[in-house]
Formats: sequence, structure tokens, C-alpha cells
Amino acid sequence: MYAVEVRDHIMIAHSFPSPLFGPAQGVHGATFTVDAAFFADDIDEHGLVVDIGLAIDALAQVLEPLRYKNLDDESQFKGIFTTTEFLSGHIFRALADKVRNGDLKDANRVRRLRITLHESHLARGWFEAEI
Amino acid sequence: MYAVEVRDHIMIAHSFPSPLFGPAQGVHGATFTVDAAFFADDIDEHGLVVDIGLAIDALAQVLEPLRYKNLDDESQFKGIFTTTEFLSGHIFRALADKVRNGDLKDANRVRRLRITLHESHLARGWFEAEI
Amino acid sequence: MYAVEVRDHIMIAHSFPSPLFGPAQGVHGATFTVDAAFFADDIDEHGLVVDIGLAIDALAQVLEPLRYKNLDDESQFKGIFTTTEFLSGHIFRALADKVRNGDLKDANRVRRLRITLHESHLARGWFEAEI
Amino acid sequence: MYAVEVRDHIMIAHSFPSPLFGPAQGVHGATFTVDAAFFADDIDEHGLVVDIGLAIDALAQVLEPLRYKNLDDESQFKGIFTTTEFLSGHIFRALADKVRNGDLKDANRVRRLRITLHESHLARGWFEAEI
Amino acid sequence: MYAVEVRDHIMIAHSFPSPLFGPAQGVHGATFTVDAAFFADDIDEHGLVVDIGLAIDALAQVLEPLRYKNLDDESQFKGIFTTTEFLSGHIFRALADKVRNGDLKDANRVRRLRITLHESHLARGWFEAEI
Amino acid sequence: MYAVEVRDHIMIAHSFPSPLFGPAQGVHGATFTVDAAFFADDIDEHGLVVDIGLAIDALAQVLEPLRYKNLDDESQFKGIFTTTEFLSGHIFRALADKVRNGDLKDANRVRRLRITLHESHLARGWFEAEI
Repeated sequence: MYAVEVRDHIMIAHSFPSPLFGPAQGVHGATFTVDAAFFADDIDEHGLVVDIGLAIDALAQVLEPLRYKNLDDESQFKGIFTTTEFLSGHIFRALADKVRNGDLKDANRVRRLRITLHESHLARGWFEAEI
Repeated sequence: MYAVEVRDHIMIAHSFPSPLFGPAQGVHGATFTVDAAFFADDIDEHGLVVDIGLAIDALAQVLEPLRYKNLDDESQFKGIFTTTEFLSGHIFRALADKVRNGDLKDANRVRRLRITLHESHLARGWFEAEI
Repeated sequence: MYAVEVRDHIMIAHSFPSPLFGPAQGVHGATFTVDAAFFADDIDEHGLVVDIGLAIDALAQVLEPLRYKNLDDESQFKGIFTTTEFLSGHIFRALADKVRNGDLKDANRVRRLRITLHESHLARGWFEAEI
Repeated sequence: MYAVEVRDHIMIAHSFPSPLFGPAQGVHGATFTVDAAFFADDIDEHGLVVDIGLAIDALAQVLEPLRYKNLDDESQFKGIFTTTEFLSGHIFRALADKVRNGDLKDANRVRRLRITLHESHLARGWFEAEI
Repeated sequence: MYAVEVRDHIMIAHSFPSPLFGPAQGVHGATFTVDAAFFADDIDEHGLVVDIGLAIDALAQVLEPLRYKNLDDESQFKGIFTTTEFLSGHIFRALADKVRNGDLKDANRVRRLRITLHESHLARGWFEAEI
Repeated sequence: MYAVEVRDHIMIAHSFPSPLFGPAQGVHGATFTVDAAFFADDIDEHGLVVDIGLAIDALAQVLEPLRYKNLDDESQFKGIFTTTEFLSGHIFRALADKVRNGDLKDANRVRRLRITLHESHLARGWFEAEI
């Protein structure tokens, strides 16, 4: 199995309105370093899993609606706890759509994605699945 | 598959009394940066694989008996080569017990763990399995 | 010149209400990995610049009022742009007070501090000065 | 599943002679930080997946023909795009040969390898398979 | 002293045609992770050492002529050993020119720069001076 | 000011026999990632602060007597607390001797050294001085 992984980041605010989250209940924020890994069984005739320039662009487009946002104000996240795990899955779904829609041109060999969000030097989360 | 990973560390001494280990036969030591990854098929209604506070506490409790110890003096490791690989498995088993015992509350969705020990900037080991 | 540096982190929200900040004008957030370096001309009879346990505690106490906060809601930051640079200086001043007040016991040999805030994998800021 | 991973690096030049690669068509270069992970179901009586000294040596031998080379001049890569993905697979095949040939002594428990090439702080690729 | 540091990278080929360089005499290459630190005595009314967007743009412009190049083919480097140290100084001089020319708007408070080039996980070089 | 920094590491055991050190009083250990930075006002005609191969060898020779050792058993450290700070100074002195003795050939332009010891992902110490 081959893979290529590219990195970007977002800086967002959010709150976790449940006593479960203790000190993190109120509005706070995070820098999420975001890694997107594209998996394929083989490489193409140019030696690629996916055109890395298109991969970087696709990840950037998926992150664009989140950049510098207070996620509490985004209607798509109404009533949702935007945890590191949730956001990993959310970004996975948006990027998988792009891959399926052919936005990565010739990327039909990509059959698996993993989205990793590093929230600090001590913690990170990810979501990985077939697409 | 979702995952959350948290980090802690231990600073221990040990020896590897076999010619196989060359210069590492005598008493020396290591800082092990320890990553514990919890895997689950889905997240709960709070958007969590596992309560990250409980995860950090559980890892800390598992590491407590090892902190600042000379592992050669620990009866549980008598006759054992406490290599990076072995310790990864040892910490896995102790943390898996905690998960199975319900110490992470509602963590019955966690079905896989991976324990990674970074021994230097050049080498690391890990153990990963279903629990 | 000897130095010891310890690390902690905070996850905060804030806004930068000026057109100068472009997309970062609204409420967003950051994980700041915070490094505090203590400088001294010499080490004491225990081989220390400063008791590292006390150093970690002092940094944690200084960061406590900022953890999981929306800095826009903190009266002490009213009308202030809480940039990475500003916060580096703010944390410096609070930690320098602790050092001068003797909270680090025998730390009168510490004569310089540097506070570094890593805001992402691409950018960081710091403030360094004599105390 | 146990694993041990060791790190080395190479600094090479190459070109990607196809319009697909845009600005990277001409001769340029890369530092590849190379991680080789050895996977085994169990550890041996010395607590090892593989003798780490032998693992480091085996990786170094596999990388030797690539060090400080212009890959465009290497006959084995004639007509091949030596991308990060391709090189991950190439190094995998060379190292898997060494494992199968018994160069890692007693390494018959190693049944899977992963070769990761970090090309920058923003991108990396890998190849992982049974051997 | 305040500072802000931003990161970019280049992937270049070059050779070091002198026996002194042993295996690195021929054409090989490197990924240089490039950090540019801007130092100032104080921050402005927006809490800034320098507008970070302009700083990132200025660094990118300075690196543009080097990206994906074989430095041996660049007339400006004829007869020069383009070592990590030399390139640190070269990038420093180009960025210092931009600062002095006012390309960073209101950056007259920047009075010192440091350019760091990370060539591998084991080595790096830098040049730091007043501007 | 130019600088070149190279990295190596040691894995040692030691104890800190004083109540001041709390849980670290007994025999434990550490991996110290060791960075040695060589500073010079200018580079030579080969574009170098110092021959990097000689620098790596010199650092390795200085670290050799410490590798895989229990520092409590070394007569040179009798009665000494071998803290991160102390060891930074100790390695500095040994490497400075080598530079002064001409072991780095033509290294008379090196006039300052900094030795950094990373003891964990949370703490590090260093010693920097003219030589």
C-alpha cells in the first residue's frame, strides 16, 4: 500500500457546552495541524499516488470554510460538539467527496484516506476509512 | 475508524545482560516518550472516542510504577529484557486492563490500542492490538 | 550562560478587530505551545539553574488564567490585540514577577527569561529580556 | 503486532521531466528522512522484534547507493520518475530482500515493513506491505 | 527583545566540487526548511513585530528564485560553494534588503534577522545579524 | 554571526541523591538528544563555519565515554549531580578543548559553542559561551 500525506492548518474557536468538558466548556480555541493521507494500491506511470499539488489544493479548499472561524457560529455545526475526533471525520467526508468527484484528476486509484488533527504537542485525533 | 492519542513520558534505568546487546549490556537509561492511541469505530454523542482527561489519567496511572525507576530492581521484570518493544507491550496490557475494567467510563467503544515508545530521535517501537 | 527550558500549552480564543488582520479579524483561536527558558550565569551546588519542578509549577500558574479562555472576555486585555508577540511579553512579565518574588526558591541566580509561543507548525514568536 | 522503527536520511538530486510536475520538472533535490518500520507478531527471548543494530546497518546499506547521488544518472532509474512514493517502494524492495536473505539474523519473525520518506515539513510518502 | 519567526522550504540541487566534501562533491540535493526570524525592541499598536502576512510573502519572494533549482546553473552562484551556511547568509541579505526597502510596511522597527536552514534531522545552519 | 549545529544522542543512567530531587533521587535514566552549535563571525572559502564531518566526529568522540553508562559509576562524576545543565557544561568543556586543540582543522574561526541537551519532549537545558 502506497500513501502520500500533506499538511495544512486551521486556527478556530469553539465551545463544548456540557459539564463533561470541565474547563473547556466555554469559548476557547485551537490550532489544528491537519494531515491528509491518501492511500492507493499502486502508483501511476508518473510515480504518483496522487498529484501532490492537487492534493494540497483539495485539502486547502476543504479547510477554507473553517479558517479563522468560531465554529459555534457555523450553522452546519449547530448542536454538534466540534471535537478533534468529530472534525477529523468532518474533514474526511469533505475531502472524500472531492476525491470521488474527480477533483484530484486521475485519483480514482485513491481508495482510502486518513485525516489527522494535532491539537497540541500532547494530543491528536484522526479518522481513517475507505472512500 | 476514529482514534485519539495522548502523550506522556518516563525516565528509567535498565540493563540488557546479554552479549547480544553490545555496549548496552550495562546499566544505562532512557527517556521514553509514550503515546497511547485509543481506536473506536464511532464517536459518542459528545463527539468523543474517549474522555481525553480520563485517557490522560489512565496512561499516567499505568506509567506511575515505572517513573524514575531502575527496572532491574522491579520484581515484575526479573529475568526480562525490558526493551522498547517489551515495554510497549507491557504498557499496552496494563492500559487495556484499565479500559476493560471501565476506568475510562463509557469507553466500551474503545476496541483497539496502540502504545508507542520513542526512545530517541532515531528509534521507536510500538505494540498495537485489539483489546 | 546556562539555561533550562520547560514546556506547557494553552488553547484560547480571541479576535483581532482591525482590517489589518484580514481573515483573522473575527473570533478564532489558537493552541499556543509555550516554552519558558530560564537563564543563569552558573548552576548551584545541586547542578541546577532552577528547580525544574518549581519552574514547571510557576509556568503553569502563570498560564492558569488563560487556559480555555476567550481572551476578548478578559478585562485585563480590553482594547489590546492579544497577538503571539503580545502574549509572549505578557507571560514573560507574569513569570518574571514570580521569579523576583522568590516563588522559585533560590532562583536569584536566574537573571534572564525567554518565553516562546508556537502558534502553528509555521509560525512562532518570543520575548526575551533580563529580569 | 509489535514494531520497531529506525531513522536515516539521504540527500539526492533528480528531475521530473514531464509538464505534469510544473516547477519541479528540472533538476532539483531533496533531503529524504527515511524511517524503516519492522513489524512482527511477537518478540523473541531477548525482547526484540529485530536486533536494532542490524536493522540500522541494513537500512544504511540499502541507502548507500543513493546517498549524495543525482538519481538521473543512475542506470537503474532510467526512464523512471523517482518520486517520494516510488523511492519508498524501491527502498522497501531492497530492504525486504535483505530481511528475506537473513541479513538481519533471526529476523524471520519480521513479516511486514513500512518505509516512510519525509520530503519536507509539509509532505511525506510511504510504502507498507507484507514481505 | 521581541521576535516573530515564519517557516517555508526549498528543494534544490547543487554540487560541492572540492575533495574536502568527500561523498558530497557530485550533484546531489537538499530540502531546506527555512525559518526567518524578525527581531524588534518593541511591538506596535497592533501588537506586532511585523505584519506576519507580509513577512511570509517577503520570505516566499526571496526563496522564489531558488525553488526547484540546480544552484550550479545559477550565474549568481558561479564559483561559490552553496553550503547551508552560505545560503543562510544569502537569504539573510536578500530579506534584509526587502526590510530596508520598506516591503514589510512599518517594519522599520525590525532591526535584526536570523535565517535558519534545516538540512536534515541531524544538521542545520543559520546566520543572524543586525540589518 | 554564522552557526552550524549537529545532533547526536546518549542514553545514560544516574541518580540524584538529595531530597531536593523528590522522585528522581534513585537510579533512573535519560535519553539526551545532544545538539552542538558552532558559531563563527564568517565562513571560509569553502562556505563553511566548520567541516561538518569533523564536527560530527568531534561531538561523537566527546560523547563516547558517556554512551550507555551509569554516570554514578564514573569516577569523574563522583559527588556531582549530573543534571541536564551540568552535562551541557561538561560536554561544552570537552568539545571546546577539541576545538582549541585543532581537532576540527582550520576551526580557529569557531569562537563560540552551545551545547543543548533535550531530556524529554517537555524539558531541555543548554550551555553557551565563548571558547
